[in-house]
Amino acid sequence: MTDIEERVRRIEDQLAIYQVVSRYGPAADAGATQAAVDLWQAEGSYEVDGVGSFTGQDEIAGLLESELHQNYIHQGSAHLLSFPHVMLNGDKATAINYAQLALCTKDGFRTIRIVASRWELVRTKQGWQVASRTNVLLDGSQAGRDLLKRGLRV
Amino acid sequence: MTDIEERVRRIEDQLAIYQVVSRYGPAADAGATQAAVDLWQAEGSYEVDGVGSFTGQDEIAGLLESELHQNYIHQGSAHLLSFPHVMLNGDKATAINYAQLALCTKDGFRTIRIVASRWELVRTKQGWQVASRTNVLLDGSQAGRDLLKRGLRV
Amino acid sequence: MTDIEERVRRIEDQLAIYQVVSRYGPAADAGATQAAVDLWQAEGSYEVDGVGSFTGQDEIAGLLESELHQNYIHQGSAHLLSFPHVMLNGDKATAINYAQLALCTKDGFRTIRIVASRWELVRTKQGWQVASRTNVLLDGSQAGRDLLKRGLRV
Repeated sequence: MTDIEERVRRIEDQLAIYQVVSRYGPAADAGATQAAVDLWQAEGSYEVDGVGSFTGQDEIAGLLESELHQNYIHQGSAHLLSFPHVMLNGDKATAINYAQLALCTKDGFRTIRIVASRWELVRTKQGWQVASRTNVLLDGSQAGRDLLKRGLRV
Repeated sequence: MTDIEERVRRIEDQLAIYQVVSRYGPAADAGATQAAVDLWQAEGSYEVDGVGSFTGQDEIAGLLESELHQNYIHQGSAHLLSFPHVMLNGDKATAINYAQLALCTKDGFRTIRIVASRWELVRTKQGWQVASRTNVLLDGSQAGRDLLKRGLRV
Repeated sequence: MTDIEERVRRIEDQLAIYQVVSRYGPAADAGATQAAVDLWQAEGSYEVDGVGSFTGQDEIAGLLESELHQNYIHQGSAHLLSFPHVMLNGDKATAINYAQLALCTKDGFRTIRIVASRWELVRTKQGWQVASRTNVLLDGSQAGRDLLKRGLRV
């Protein structure tokens, strides 16, 4: 590759990762389980603080089809993901961002959870996919600060 | 165009759409009606769930000059738009994201609305502009999930 | 530079500024004071409405090490920064966005502040850095609307 091709490819990588992260919330809130699950590799994992650990697309689909999640989306939910900070490393990447879960109530929307989220992504034949995503609740415990520090490489 | 020019143009398109979406909130909260309205084509439309349907820049300006909106910004408002998921298709594009309306109260900020938003954009001589924007309240009804599904093409 | 190099460089500038802005929240919430402070130039400034004016990396570090900020992160805090609207101007740039401070409580998360934020950035040998950041509380006063208008160049 020429230098300019290399630079364009890095830019495309960054934007492709933005596209992965920005697709999760709408897919989750739409009840579009397959679209959400397709963001992961077949053997990918999703660790959700206080909820459980899910390995492989079937288990992640199970989370999104669970009574817990289905109740959220039928009450009215918004999985608000902040734009990520991305660290590219060849065919791998780490992204960190925040995910906020807001629910519709009679008196406006209420944010019941905010997590720090670390995404480990890999370049595959299908484009960038999630190898693992880890959410830690920002409840003041050390675990949230550690996840963010590791994500920032500090 | 060479292959590399084509790729750079697609990247510029994606970033230009980010710039459109990220300009709406500040313009709305600043009371900069013209800056907000200029994001749309002259004949563009804006459908706001529970508020009304507005066609053409004059009607959209009317919404932003309405007592409802002016009361929001003088109370203290934040139109928080999430970074969009963008699907480019030549000279057209669809973007989906969330828009949250938070208002300043004596006791912190309160989120009174969260909508799913679908943007239909077109490339014009003035750059990317909004042909139509549709907001559906995420109150648990099917309409919100349908808007997101259509936006995701699933 | 060729035309295509110039275009690629502008794209890289925009993404580099996204990376600066998206790094602040995680660094602040992680208690990674040095990582946060390194976003600024040595002599950079940070004006925080209702809190104070901080000039130079040492003073900004002092803010992040203050009892106020440390109490936030040990209670559980999320500094949620929206994706910015960026105006490039050669080796300088202005970005505007929103920053929301949400705190963990027994009853979900509560947003205690939302500010409009204007970032003045400069290209340095270390990449894009913050020359000044100014936060104005969106409490309905004219100052918030003025900051946004200036940021939008309207």
